[in-house]
Amino acid sequence: MNDTRNPVASLIVIGNEVLSGRTQDLNIKYIATRCGEIGIPLREVRIIPDVAETIVSTVNEMRARFDHVFTTGGIGPTHDDITSENVAAAFGVPCEPHPEAWARMEKHYAPGEFNAARQRMATMPRGAKLIETAISIAPGFSIGNVHVMAGVPRIMQAMFNTLSAGLEGGVPISSRAVHVFGLPEGVIADGLGAIQRRYPDTDLGSYPFYRSAGNGVAVVAKGTDAAALERSIAEVSELIVGFGREALGGEPNA
Amino acid sequence: MNDTRNPVASLIVIGNEVLSGRTQDLNIKYIATRCGEIGIPLREVRIIPDVAETIVSTVNEMRARFDHVFTTGGIGPTHDDITSENVAAAFGVPCEPHPEAWARMEKHYAPGEFNAARQRMATMPRGAKLIETAISIAPGFSIGNVHVMAGVPRIMQAMFNTLSAGLEGGVPISSRAVHVFGLPEGVIADGLGAIQRRYPDTDLGSYPFYRSAGNGVAVVAKGTDAAALERSIAEVSELIVGFGREALGGEPNA
Repeated sequence: MNDTRNPVASLIVIGNEVLSGRTQDLNIKYIATRCGEIGIPLREVRIIPDVAETIVSTVNEMRARFDHVFTTGGIGPTHDDITSENVAAAFGVPCEPHPEAWARMEKHYAPGEFNAARQRMATMPRGAKLIETAISIAPGFSIGNVHVMAGVPRIMQAMFNTLSAGLEGGVPISSRAVHVFGLPEGVIADGLGAIQRRYPDTDLGSYPFYRSAGNGVAVVAKGTDAAALERSIAEVSELIVGFGREALGGEPNA
Repeated sequence: MNDTRNPVASLIVIGNEVLSGRTQDLNIKYIATRCGEIGIPLREVRIIPDVAETIVSTVNEMRARFDHVFTTGGIGPTHDDITSENVAAAFGVPCEPHPEAWARMEKHYAPGEFNAARQRMATMPRGAKLIETAISIAPGFSIGNVHVMAGVPRIMQAMFNTLSAGLEGGVPISSRAVHVFGLPEGVIADGLGAIQRRYPDTDLGSYPFYRSAGNGVAVVAKGTDAAALERSIAEVSELIVGFGREALGGEPNA
């Protein structure tokens, strides 16, 4: 995984609903994929509860360790939405009405409807830069290297699009794959390990699959050097053919 | 969330494939749900790469902070399966052939097929207790309060079943829910916050939904005191009715 010249990111998923099993998270895969595309690979994810001190300590640890920290969840109007105030606490700045967000939301709602709960969605760490979208009146925000987004997937995705357009990315992470039916991991493991050692800058992953069409293994090469990916996957294909099997390009169909 | 008499758990998902976006994780929701059922609620999840020092430091931090630590991924036969050796390193014990697992696997494979790669799946921290299943010849294992399971969902689930039968659980986490169409979160937020303050031992979550049948909010109460859940959800229902809407039991259909 020698994309060391690339900036790196982490993600903090904030929400009891994921930790309780109530909600199947769909944001991690989206953000992970997009981070690879913009060359800011995701290196760690934490899923934490709506607990003030946990949010503060996790944000502070992550922002010190990674170039970018994304967060999802906890920026709505209800009592369990406590991300903004705790990101402010992590940075040691006041959490206060954001003039631009406040004006925009005040104008959006009918007289009397911009109530205390909704005003919380326009209340942010001092110095926050808005992440605005066309589909939600309540924006996300960035402060320093921390980017605070909604938990609802389609709103989060719109926010990520706005945000990523302004981030200085690195070399995109490319991917090449090959798969084989009827050959267990345990048979190709030694040869695969030898190929990995010859391509230290490529991340070679081995993933067994179990399909109605048959069982097998997919090998996926990821990294920033597309030529090295091609060569390593070509070697894996030769390894497979050496065991008398057909090496099929790409990943198996779902 | 006053299930403080319950033991608590964390989960470490080990695998580049989740961090790269290649794989949609399905284990977190399963383990979170099951942990609630056995009264060992999940308090934190970390998704980390296949990097030795990250595994060691994460395992050591988590096992000191939680009663139980589950891990998924990285116990297969290939070069990227490095969980077992690094859990051993975290505990400061040798990683060596486990007599029982070794004998079982040696017997399973045809002569000559129990190769070096497969032998790695029978190599574990000294003192590991096997987690055996009917569907995989390669077992998971527990050492101390750390429970090491496969990453493939159906194998992980079988391992969790074996494992959880032997864990001393707490009071199961129960759940009650109510939902409403056509009422935005921002309208009920103040009343909801007041109800949450009256039921400090209940975890009251507010989740907007967007369906073809209409948009609305689901409110979910979770905790160990079923009577308190009933009362808090009854109060939420009254709140909804007070806004001239129908309070519908349970969560909206998917």
